[in-house]
Amino acid sequence: MPVLKNISALYTCPPDGGQHDVGEIRNAAMVWADGQIIWSGPEPDLPKIYKGYLTYDARGRMVIPGLIDCHTHLAFGGWRADEFEMRSLGRSYLDIAKAGGGILSSVDATRQAAPEKLLEKCRVLISHIVKLGVTTIEAKTGYGLDLDTELSVLRVYRQLNNIGLIEIIPTYLGAHTIPPEYSKDRRKYMRTIINTVLPMVNIEGSARFIDVFVEDSAFTADEARRILMAGMEFGLRAKVHADQLSACGGAELAAEVGAVSADHLERVTDQGIQRLSKTGVVAVSLPLASFYLKQPPLPARKLIDSKVPVAVATDFNPGSAPSWHLPLAMTMACTMQSMSPAEVLKGATAYAARAISVDDTLGSLQPGMQADFAIIDAPDVNHWLYHFRPNACVATYKKGRALHDVSETEAVYPWY
Amino acid sequence: MPVLKNISALYTCPPDGGQHDVGEIRNAAMVWADGQIIWSGPEPDLPKIYKGYLTYDARGRMVIPGLIDCHTHLAFGGWRADEFEMRSLGRSYLDIAKAGGGILSSVDATRQAAPEKLLEKCRVLISHIVKLGVTTIEAKTGYGLDLDTELSVLRVYRQLNNIGLIEIIPTYLGAHTIPPEYSKDRRKYMRTIINTVLPMVNIEGSARFIDVFVEDSAFTADEARRILMAGMEFGLRAKVHADQLSACGGAELAAEVGAVSADHLERVTDQGIQRLSKTGVVAVSLPLASFYLKQPPLPARKLIDSKVPVAVATDFNPGSAPSWHLPLAMTMACTMQSMSPAEVLKGATAYAARAISVDDTLGSLQPGMQADFAIIDAPDVNHWLYHFRPNACVATYKKGRALHDVSETEAVYPWY
Repeated sequence: MPVLKNISALYTCPPDGGQHDVGEIRNAAMVWADGQIIWSGPEPDLPKIYKGYLTYDARGRMVIPGLIDCHTHLAFGGWRADEFEMRSLGRSYLDIAKAGGGILSSVDATRQAAPEKLLEKCRVLISHIVKLGVTTIEAKTGYGLDLDTELSVLRVYRQLNNIGLIEIIPTYLGAHTIPPEYSKDRRKYMRTIINTVLPMVNIEGSARFIDVFVEDSAFTADEARRILMAGMEFGLRAKVHADQLSACGGAELAAEVGAVSADHLERVTDQGIQRLSKTGVVAVSLPLASFYLKQPPLPARKLIDSKVPVAVATDFNPGSAPSWHLPLAMTMACTMQSMSPAEVLKGATAYAARAISVDDTLGSLQPGMQADFAIIDAPDVNHWLYHFRPNACVATYKKGRALHDVSETEAVYPWY
Repeated sequence: MPVLKNISALYTCPPDGGQHDVGEIRNAAMVWADGQIIWSGPEPDLPKIYKGYLTYDARGRMVIPGLIDCHTHLAFGGWRADEFEMRSLGRSYLDIAKAGGGILSSVDATRQAAPEKLLEKCRVLISHIVKLGVTTIEAKTGYGLDLDTELSVLRVYRQLNNIGLIEIIPTYLGAHTIPPEYSKDRRKYMRTIINTVLPMVNIEGSARFIDVFVEDSAFTADEARRILMAGMEFGLRAKVHADQLSACGGAELAAEVGAVSADHLERVTDQGIQRLSKTGVVAVSLPLASFYLKQPPLPARKLIDSKVPVAVATDFNPGSAPSWHLPLAMTMACTMQSMSPAEVLKGATAYAARAISVDDTLGSLQPGMQADFAIIDAPDVNHWLYHFRPNACVATYKKGRALHDVSETEAVYPWY
């Protein structure tokens, strides 16, 4: 039953409360046992019963729930660095596709990648991601599209869960784009998803969510509805890539089908926001995608003012958001999306947990929650997200056990 | 005479050539001795004479000149995290100043800081900065403003040079803002700079540049001219904070006085660009300041098209650019400023060296240059700046000696 003391600020991030409610406790302590939080509160209130137990010293640093990246496309073959250069010089998406780039080039590379190589690549990425304080990530398919590769990617995610460093919440995104072999018959591809791939995903029990990219260049709202309903019949919960490049009714669809989240929303309409606010759908903001694509971000303040919970995630993928640096996305959410550091912290913990339906155990440090937490070398959340550094996280704990811990050896940052 | 082999791409970054000319050599090798580059070129061309020498293996990674951060405000007391929260929620600069924030709060904190604490703070920051591959930084005064504190900060910079981890190029920026004790007599403050502080800076020989913040809220172009001319009479070269928040003639003044650089330039006019292009002034772009302040960036493409060399730096300071992460600034220069990764690399090496008049020895890996270099765990510059990670640098060498080196112990990144 370890005790962590001398915490400058502990953020319990209660699952309820508003966007700003991060349950800040200054000069705090925390106790955990058997992978669960037992007690958290002001250090002077620490019950005497815990005083004889193994005690760690946070050395005046802050503690947060383990970060949750609730929107990633983790497994893919290859990278698309040359597209980045083309985009930086103003080449259009069409130019890039003509030059053999774009999402289909990642589909091609993913199909060609051996599953063992994909697994090893993801394993190494996760070993880096964990050091940022991230303890759970959602991970989508969608770069295979065909039956074999989609199932193979889901098996990679299952095996990563078995390795156990980080928790992976898998999402089936067969409806990411129309694969080239179906380019002349999109209805046939939809039938393949519904009649062939989904039943196999169900048999393997390898996905928790079904996601669709609703966009002019991908799937219409009507097509998306059919696919989401089919997935929901197999017990998957719905997520929607909504209103990223144009207002296509993605937010409205998410509300209609009772999706757990509507992601992107850069172009969401006021009507879409109203629909979301009535149904409890989480809005997942992806500032790195806005940054890399030079797009305006989603209207976070309007969403928050309408009581829509706003999560913050990376959208990590090889094209439009090639970074898994969640704390960078969080700092960007402050500047680009006009959210306060506390609001952003809530969005990458409790609300991120809600966006992937794990908020009963994850995303908060209240007693009874899983002991996933990170020690951040900053006095409070404002200092942390204001002063961007390569990595301010000095320890990451999953179920009460250290995945990464340099908190005793690394000097406290000069916050004076 | 060590030899470094198996370099995927070596960027020699010649001092001349255009913005895009980074002297890329694929499958390269490099030789150095006594702190200088002796040979660099394709590995198959490595002269036989070097084959018996101590050989390091770059393991297929890329090598660049040590990065140069040519615009920082390194030494300051305190931090201003709560202002960041206020700005994220839309509070204005005036609101923040009324709440006791802004630049004058840093002046206050810097005056109150013991020089030993400032030195220790800078020393720790530098120990982190070096790990990013940065080997030289320019550092300004300007948070002391009074004689004692300005000289004290310059002595801190001198002592940091004596410690020798990184090279510090010191700039006197007494004309950063009008200090509160002179708020009713700005002419008196200018006389203090010219007649009191500058002669002492000269006696101590502790600055190489003089800089002025030309802005409605700081100094007019006429005032700046007087201060710069006075500094130049003491042998300092001129730099100008120009056209950041409004077009105040800063670029034109930089051209007129033969400044080595004009920094910021977010609001530079076409006429200002023309003046710069005729005089060889380096334009120093500061994308982190644009990012943190939600301002449009400088017109980098117009500057490049007009043959103005564009450097890239952090502007690290506690208010408008609270990050010393130069590679993040570089990725931002690609997205926000529409510069290619190669153009940005040139801007943070050879052109950054030119912006602080050290391009005779630094910023390039051609034979005869100082052996300051970094090993970056990426196959080429496009991959590096595209895929933002906490830190892709695995080794930093200054004058041929390792300041930081995990290149042998850290696994090569999964670039497949």
